[in-house]
Amino acid sequence: MTASITNLRVRYNECDPMGIAHHTAYPVWFEIGRTELLRQSPSPITYRDLEAKGLALAVVTLEVRYKRPAKYDDVLELRTTITEMGHVKIKHEYELLRDGALLATGRTTLACLDRQGRPQAVPAILRS
Amino acid sequence: MTASITNLRVRYNECDPMGIAHHTAYPVWFEIGRTELLRQSPSPITYRDLEAKGLALAVVTLEVRYKRPAKYDDVLELRTTITEMGHVKIKHEYELLRDGALLATGRTTLACLDRQGRPQAVPAILRS
Amino acid sequence: MTASITNLRVRYNECDPMGIAHHTAYPVWFEIGRTELLRQSPSPITYRDLEAKGLALAVVTLEVRYKRPAKYDDVLELRTTITEMGHVKIKHEYELLRDGALLATGRTTLACLDRQGRPQAVPAILRS
Amino acid sequence: MTASITNLRVRYNECDPMGIAHHTAYPVWFEIGRTELLRQSPSPITYRDLEAKGLALAVVTLEVRYKRPAKYDDVLELRTTITEMGHVKIKHEYELLRDGALLATGRTTLACLDRQGRPQAVPAILRS
Repeated sequence: MTASITNLRVRYNECDPMGIAHHTAYPVWFEIGRTELLRQSPSPITYRDLEAKGLALAVVTLEVRYKRPAKYDDVLELRTTITEMGHVKIKHEYELLRDGALLATGRTTLACLDRQGRPQAVPAILRS
Repeated sequence: MTASITNLRVRYNECDPMGIAHHTAYPVWFEIGRTELLRQSPSPITYRDLEAKGLALAVVTLEVRYKRPAKYDDVLELRTTITEMGHVKIKHEYELLRDGALLATGRTTLACLDRQGRPQAVPAILRS
Repeated sequence: MTASITNLRVRYNECDPMGIAHHTAYPVWFEIGRTELLRQSPSPITYRDLEAKGLALAVVTLEVRYKRPAKYDDVLELRTTITEMGHVKIKHEYELLRDGALLATGRTTLACLDRQGRPQAVPAILRS
Repeated sequence: MTASITNLRVRYNECDPMGIAHHTAYPVWFEIGRTELLRQSPSPITYRDLEAKGLALAVVTLEVRYKRPAKYDDVLELRTTITEMGHVKIKHEYELLRDGALLATGRTTLACLDRQGRPQAVPAILRS
């Protein structure tokens, strides 16, 4: 499983005085996309399972391009794709749409770390 | 030390499409008031020190009364007072003001817990 | 329609260093419960429709009682009930459960306001 | 005024189950850096003044590189710099430090928009 689709409804508290979703809501949604992608994987493994093993996937880079605003109560479709699975790092790309129109795109790089913040190999189960 | 005053500036992302601070920002500010009250205590002890000892002060009740809206970029004065120090529980009251006008009041009850969520005696150092 | 049930999954960013949902996430969830209750009403009317008419339902009191922690990725059931429909004010009660166990309860009072913050009669359509 | 320094203390609710500031807190801090940079400008003009004139500075791109974690209650220094002032767009760069150690860097592009979301010239007062 290297891609997933998640539906999200924009919350009132995620919107700002411009009446639109604040730009910091988008990386929150991307994180939900990653959680759901993991859940839908054939293994299946949850991020909570990873943390129980003492591993964390820390965000080391984040990029977002905002094209059109999202409004309160909009239903959005988030497409999350794994674009690269390295030894320690995982790259994802995101597309956020409303009724087929692209609102934003994003990219993240995660690093697999232990509880002391030291780089660890991405578990084999995440590579399946 | 049973009372403290903290100044806060309303953040843009704390405001909603009505153009005012969202009601969920207020308990975030109350928590800052408690943190600063602890820091200003004669001991002094920080909440971070408590967590390092395996203790947590968990919120078990919260009440807020909203009287006048707070707006983006407003400078607010938060008055935080300990009103009751029990064996396991601590009660605080809050007054939030702008230029002397009362915007909101609040009350919380915290319980001292260990890492397994079991009630613990409030450390003596917090009683000084 | 005076009651609704909404399912929510606890987001990673809603959790704090204790590993549990931060207490300020609960009133965010209650707001979602109100939004969904309005959407499921026979009329049907959305909160977005109300705002387009220049009306707002502002929270004037909030109470939460926290009984058991909610954890990251938990699926919660939120029961939202209208307990009083006054001329200007609406009262709701909330029950938050996980697998049938009660995690928290809450109560809010909302006031119907115009764009200048003046009290307005709750629209008839909300009373149906 | 093309650069400013802002001090911030990491809030408890900004931290996640890893015990460190969640990655979505950083763009919130960057926004505070921009607000303070504007306030410290010789003019001086506040972002609230801009909004009152019907203008908004919308984030169109965001990039963050996370190098070291920030912890609860840490005092951080945020350096915000305007790197490009175009006709419609403004670019900023950010450095976030703790005790002189670089924790993260960031870049944003803002576009000046009217209330309908149409591009507008950046007001002359922002160029001074």
